[in-house]
Amino acid sequence: MNKKIRMGQQSISFDSPVYIMSSASVVGPKEGEGPLKDTFDKIYDDATFGKDSWEEGESEMLKETVMLAISKAGLETDDIRYLFAGDLLGQLIATTFGVMDLNIPLFGLYGACSTMGEALALGAMTVNAGYADRVVAAVSSHFGGAEKQFRFPLEYGNQRPMSSTWTVTGSGAFVLSNEKSDVKITGITTGKVVDYGVKDSLNMGACMAPAAADLIYEHLKDFEREPDYYDKIITGDLGVVGREILCKLLIDQGINIASVHMDCGMEIYNDIEQDTHSGGSGCGCSAVTLAGKLMNELKTGELKRILFVPTGALLSTVSYNEGQSVPGIAHGVVIESCV
Amino acid sequence: MNKKIRMGQQSISFDSPVYIMSSASVVGPKEGEGPLKDTFDKIYDDATFGKDSWEEGESEMLKETVMLAISKAGLETDDIRYLFAGDLLGQLIATTFGVMDLNIPLFGLYGACSTMGEALALGAMTVNAGYADRVVAAVSSHFGGAEKQFRFPLEYGNQRPMSSTWTVTGSGAFVLSNEKSDVKITGITTGKVVDYGVKDSLNMGACMAPAAADLIYEHLKDFEREPDYYDKIITGDLGVVGREILCKLLIDQGINIASVHMDCGMEIYNDIEQDTHSGGSGCGCSAVTLAGKLMNELKTGELKRILFVPTGALLSTVSYNEGQSVPGIAHGVVIESCV
Repeated sequence: MNKKIRMGQQSISFDSPVYIMSSASVVGPKEGEGPLKDTFDKIYDDATFGKDSWEEGESEMLKETVMLAISKAGLETDDIRYLFAGDLLGQLIATTFGVMDLNIPLFGLYGACSTMGEALALGAMTVNAGYADRVVAAVSSHFGGAEKQFRFPLEYGNQRPMSSTWTVTGSGAFVLSNEKSDVKITGITTGKVVDYGVKDSLNMGACMAPAAADLIYEHLKDFEREPDYYDKIITGDLGVVGREILCKLLIDQGINIASVHMDCGMEIYNDIEQDTHSGGSGCGCSAVTLAGKLMNELKTGELKRILFVPTGALLSTVSYNEGQSVPGIAHGVVIESCV
Repeated sequence: MNKKIRMGQQSISFDSPVYIMSSASVVGPKEGEGPLKDTFDKIYDDATFGKDSWEEGESEMLKETVMLAISKAGLETDDIRYLFAGDLLGQLIATTFGVMDLNIPLFGLYGACSTMGEALALGAMTVNAGYADRVVAAVSSHFGGAEKQFRFPLEYGNQRPMSSTWTVTGSGAFVLSNEKSDVKITGITTGKVVDYGVKDSLNMGACMAPAAADLIYEHLKDFEREPDYYDKIITGDLGVVGREILCKLLIDQGINIASVHMDCGMEIYNDIEQDTHSGGSGCGCSAVTLAGKLMNELKTGELKRILFVPTGALLSTVSYNEGQSVPGIAHGVVIESCV
């Protein structure tokens, strides 16, 4: 029998945990030159991944990452019952064309850069409930495709303000299972759309910070925990600007996470050498940081317990050009070391 | 204890069924002049729903539909634990801005026009597993927004070939619960991305029919059922052109669904009077047909058992302009009358 408890308003605690059997990360050249380069499974020198366009390249990267995660778990694609996946492109084309040949039933997801959290949450719910023995949760993002989709053509060469972030070219995938492994998912908190009215698509950190603050606040309330219950509370891609807002918003609620907070967007590049301004962003940012660095530290027990909170900015060129704000969403996943 | 059985490769049978407490449908003017006009909860004469743009109008329509479904179930938004929702627009902006004020934890979904099936499936899995007592599954689509997003500006006045379908301006929402009601969900089959290489974005029926055929074939195999087990097997929006391909593809597999097949896209408009060519399409097409006409017939017992199979064409202008094909996906939901 599966055991789980609904916690508070937005959370689920898996008494019978869901295990992460394997993780995989594939990234582009810029990520391969950054501080986390030794933690990725594969680094491509070519940002089109051998294909004719960024979009096809992103699909190829996602497909390779999913297949790598499956093979690292010692499995075949036939062993995977469901795939929970998404990306940033309109109508999820990176995912569609990436997973097509894998022949795995697909739940397509969109949570902007929070999609890794959404995929892990739904994947874990599915395994915990006994609907599947093994599922894959995967996301991707691509700098070239994302700039074309959301902002300006790269060839236009627009200036990037210091508040802007750099979309990570990367894909992360995770095989979730009920078979015991070194790392487990023990709970989730599902986010709401939070809008503070910020309208600057070149300051995504400010757009997403309120959603991250809301998620972390609700999570700690639902589970009746203090921030230091976790070794780290890890946001996805707030960057330098967003992190400051997040910490301030939580201080206003009497919560101080400064000593345990980490932001994947601030880890993945070296701004001074790589000119990435506020940090990295994109679904791939939190996904490859979790799949590489964080999974390594969870597997050795260096990290015991983390709250993983990928953060998404919910905009499109259409809503942006029509003068709408950029609301945010965040999804929380509690991940623990079994070592 | 929740009871469910994994069936075959892609399906789940809910031994302890999930109930549809209420459904709601809100549509635009053209749908309100069609054959199903008496089955909708609300018809707007204004395709912008009182807002400044089609997109904002679609958000308003989705929000109203979700709130109507909740109130028809005698509930408040606080009673809903999770929302499973999506639309056709890039980055799901209709959903984002529509559900923002509702303050319900959101799982954003994208399955193109199959999203109603995906939302009902994940919603039912969540309720059946005991993660929530009540969830809402909802989708929307809008003719104006979809044409702008996927094809040509309406002002351009391009000719529409006879194979083209007309995106339904409509939203459907369903409250799912473990409390007994007149209609129940007893099983699901989750679809894979299926690509036959069709590249015509003005012939979506042909793009989606292979995915529908694959889903129906796998469903019948997983549950060991014959087509006449169902009063109706109902596809989302194949239209006249897609229906013919679907029936032929299944005949090739030794399955004849002609006598029980119905397509929502062929029901919602009167092509001769309304000039809609191959039929209706969009997530809203199957959603409002289920929320109105089909739910009415299930509640009276006129329909005893249906297999609901919304069908999605997975394209974007980016993938289309880069010469990619239009793959399809379909999700199946078994819905039964309790009367």
